[in-house]
Amino acid sequence: MKKSALQVARAAYQPKLPRALQGPVVAKEGAATQSVGNQEEIKAMFPNTYGMPVITFEAGEQKTLEPFNVGIILSGGQAPGGHNVISGLYDGVKSLNKNSKLYGFLMGPGGLVDHKYVEFTDEFIDEYRNTGGFDIIGSGRTKLEKTEQFESGIEILRKLGIKALVIIGGDDSNTNACVLAEYYAAKNYGVQVIGCPKTIDGDLKNDQIETSFGFDTACKTYSELIGNIQRDCNSARKYWHFIKLMGRSASHIALECALETQPNVCLISEEVEQKAMSLDDVVTYIAKIVADRAAEGNNFGTVLIPEGLIEFIPAIKKLIAELNEVLTDPTTGESRVFGSKDEQVKFVKSNIAPDNLAVLESLPKDVERQLCLDRDPHGNVQVSLIETEKLLSAMVAMKLDKWKQEGKYNGKFAPQHHFFGYEGRCAAPSNYDADYCYSLGYNASRLIANGKTGYMSVIKNTTAPAAEWIAGGVPITMMMNLERRNGAMKPVIRKALVELDGAPFKFFASKREDMSILAPSSTGDPARSATSARRPLLLNKANK
Amino acid sequence: MKKSALQVARAAYQPKLPRALQGPVVAKEGAATQSVGNQEEIKAMFPNTYGMPVITFEAGEQKTLEPFNVGIILSGGQAPGGHNVISGLYDGVKSLNKNSKLYGFLMGPGGLVDHKYVEFTDEFIDEYRNTGGFDIIGSGRTKLEKTEQFESGIEILRKLGIKALVIIGGDDSNTNACVLAEYYAAKNYGVQVIGCPKTIDGDLKNDQIETSFGFDTACKTYSELIGNIQRDCNSARKYWHFIKLMGRSASHIALECALETQPNVCLISEEVEQKAMSLDDVVTYIAKIVADRAAEGNNFGTVLIPEGLIEFIPAIKKLIAELNEVLTDPTTGESRVFGSKDEQVKFVKSNIAPDNLAVLESLPKDVERQLCLDRDPHGNVQVSLIETEKLLSAMVAMKLDKWKQEGKYNGKFAPQHHFFGYEGRCAAPSNYDADYCYSLGYNASRLIANGKTGYMSVIKNTTAPAAEWIAGGVPITMMMNLERRNGAMKPVIRKALVELDGAPFKFFASKREDMSILAPSSTGDPARSATSARRPLLLNKANK
Repeated sequence: MKKSALQVARAAYQPKLPRALQGPVVAKEGAATQSVGNQEEIKAMFPNTYGMPVITFEAGEQKTLEPFNVGIILSGGQAPGGHNVISGLYDGVKSLNKNSKLYGFLMGPGGLVDHKYVEFTDEFIDEYRNTGGFDIIGSGRTKLEKTEQFESGIEILRKLGIKALVIIGGDDSNTNACVLAEYYAAKNYGVQVIGCPKTIDGDLKNDQIETSFGFDTACKTYSELIGNIQRDCNSARKYWHFIKLMGRSASHIALECALETQPNVCLISEEVEQKAMSLDDVVTYIAKIVADRAAEGNNFGTVLIPEGLIEFIPAIKKLIAELNEVLTDPTTGESRVFGSKDEQVKFVKSNIAPDNLAVLESLPKDVERQLCLDRDPHGNVQVSLIETEKLLSAMVAMKLDKWKQEGKYNGKFAPQHHFFGYEGRCAAPSNYDADYCYSLGYNASRLIANGKTGYMSVIKNTTAPAAEWIAGGVPITMMMNLERRNGAMKPVIRKALVELDGAPFKFFASKREDMSILAPSSTGDPARSATSARRPLLLNKANK
Repeated sequence: MKKSALQVARAAYQPKLPRALQGPVVAKEGAATQSVGNQEEIKAMFPNTYGMPVITFEAGEQKTLEPFNVGIILSGGQAPGGHNVISGLYDGVKSLNKNSKLYGFLMGPGGLVDHKYVEFTDEFIDEYRNTGGFDIIGSGRTKLEKTEQFESGIEILRKLGIKALVIIGGDDSNTNACVLAEYYAAKNYGVQVIGCPKTIDGDLKNDQIETSFGFDTACKTYSELIGNIQRDCNSARKYWHFIKLMGRSASHIALECALETQPNVCLISEEVEQKAMSLDDVVTYIAKIVADRAAEGNNFGTVLIPEGLIEFIPAIKKLIAELNEVLTDPTTGESRVFGSKDEQVKFVKSNIAPDNLAVLESLPKDVERQLCLDRDPHGNVQVSLIETEKLLSAMVAMKLDKWKQEGKYNGKFAPQHHFFGYEGRCAAPSNYDADYCYSLGYNASRLIANGKTGYMSVIKNTTAPAAEWIAGGVPITMMMNLERRNGAMKPVIRKALVELDGAPFKFFASKREDMSILAPSSTGDPARSATSARRPLLLNKANK
């Protein structure tokens, strides 16, 4: 394939490594660790991988190593930088012994179970350095959690002489990596398992993990588009752009993009939930800002909306919970069957609690109908089908109409809608993600060489230049607690939501009133310039 | 405002100029010209600006010039590079006499009529060099076509001592620029008018104009996003992405993006019209490619759709024409009033021709209803509200279901939808657009200095390095013919649609069968690599 100038330049980029990983390393071990919660239960579940120390790599002496083979798996949704984790691991493994081999399992954890794999070569890896996507070996959502899967896995691992498996994934995939590590340790199978922290949503983050890879690139990609739209907004001066951003459970992406682009409105799901805001509260908040800007003659602006917002509104959450139940026949446990859609809508509306009915009927007709009718194969309301950006703009329009009749508003309101998700998941990694991912992969080879299992590859101090980054490993059990999943208590890594008393949110909250009334920022690139006040449009300099 | 590293680097970029414009110039004049059609009528309409020669600038001797003032207007939709036309013009005007002034009229042609303007300074211009958007002075869609507007304009032009006005716009705006040039020439007002070719859609293009500015950047911006999506598509291997692209009347953007990104399907409105394809033909064409890929186990891919497609399907065009009529009462000329929406739908369906009714009823229910109900303030069907990407994917799903029942298809079809328009109109200009626009603006100052009016600033030979570009001017009348607009014959610049016997379309057509079956390209950047066959996914190398 003929490459473009940009592709050639990007392929030639040499990702940076922490200084400690630039030569031979020695592993410094800290004290024994405890899980973040439910320590006795977690310890009982992970007798072989619980309580291990945090590892930090420092410059040391080179040991001679026999050739060893490693396998790698991409698990879950795409995030920029995955290819660099693999190329870092490949280079790390080869640096220890050039006869070592790296295998990739295809289409996610399923490739391990079904024995589908490729062997990486220099030529193969070189095609993918510093590129976005997971297409090098594909990804998948098969959950590794059953004994049969682990046993099927060990067959192929033995056949290929693989001594360690690296699993790149989010909170669930890393939990499962640890379960697998424990199982292989308990069985004395002699296969180590190492995890790498990936989520584009940024919700795999804690005292040990500064950030999950891909988040930086995705936010920069979305922010560039938001910047373009805000320039358009400031040029045309006639549209309100409602922009929904990826992030079902956490609003990190929306918050980071707001800090980068300074929109007029950015909703944060965690705040909406904490303040127990109703849908009408949310709509009123937006409509008030639209009206305030209209009063200054500015009938344009931008609104950022996290994808999962609707489920964080307590009243809607409660409504959805009842809707999920009402269509199931309690005596049979089966979905009820109706003669017509209208009959189904009628049944739903006459069988839910009055307060839920009031919430349902406050919604635009098409959303009301969709909630009553569309179900997924498990009989649940398909919340992800709700186009929240359109729902909000429609309700803001209704609110503004009412205010207009009351003489409180006299502007024009013309909305446009956008949803950015797939646009950023496979973007070429930023230098930060290229370096971070390469380091995570390279570092994993050192954890393997030091015989570790049940660890996550961890790189810290990443706001400093890469040479000063700190490389090491954290026992996955250390990040676990028990949470109820499908009716049973399961060990899980706690999802990191936006903390309302954390620095990013507090900074945003301190600026948002100014941002709401000023023209949205026209940076058009991720300027991270929220610290400086935006200049009012030069148009305001004009003769009047 | 604190600038990011990228903003600082971009601001420092010095746009390239054609060699002839790098020093003093002399204007070489060609032979007298004719309009492309209706020559007698156009000549009669433009007695003062018809038949002028094409101008080419060559290196010459510097003449001393008195200070002179110039005004500039941004007209119509945003396109990347507008700020560079202005900075090029500013630098060009100042290079001729540093005491000359450049004024910008605000929010489009309306700023001239309403006497709203700013004076540009070095500091002001420097803030906007090589940036996207039209926010420097705003743009607007007021049409300059009435005598009162021209007369109001001359008042402020005289007050500011402006000797020439530059209008940056598309086909209509340039036509109006010529009408204004003719009016001021006929009245001996002593104000020259120069046009600059801008349309993001790429439809202002002919023997004299190689491309309109902004098109290159917009296509690169969209192609980068399409590349990201295609990488995601190849990684996840489970979605068909239906991507609608800006371009109401011409499919240039879709075609260019297809050449840059090699999707599985790209529809070209002009071809659909020329082949008189029905909606079912279009749906069958897409569904066939989905089914063919499914037969190879590939239930994923991408489909590019030009925004205006639906209006190019002859049967839909005919249906819409009748729908536009049926709701108007022919005796009063007023819109009919109905008691309810259902009544309105019923009336429409029982009052249109049977063939149109059949087409209407072949559409998904919500589109059918929308076409019967939603009208713009002029009573016309709001075609732009139809989400063509969703309409097509819904109909493809229906077709595939049918084929599945017939045993002809056994795949999975999960569509995702995207629409890219505002995301690219205000992107930072590519180097090509930065250079091209700066040259167009700088060149306009030379046309002004040479006393020209009714000309468009033109830069040719732009596939060569910038130094070899040819700078000059083309009389706008040369590009005109007469077309029927709102019932009357009007002089217009002919819109350039995609030519089915032109090189770009022919190249695309020669490759599309291969593209339809291969994995979509994962370039992730505008590789312009359509000439090279895509490598099958490395996954295919795997053990089976």
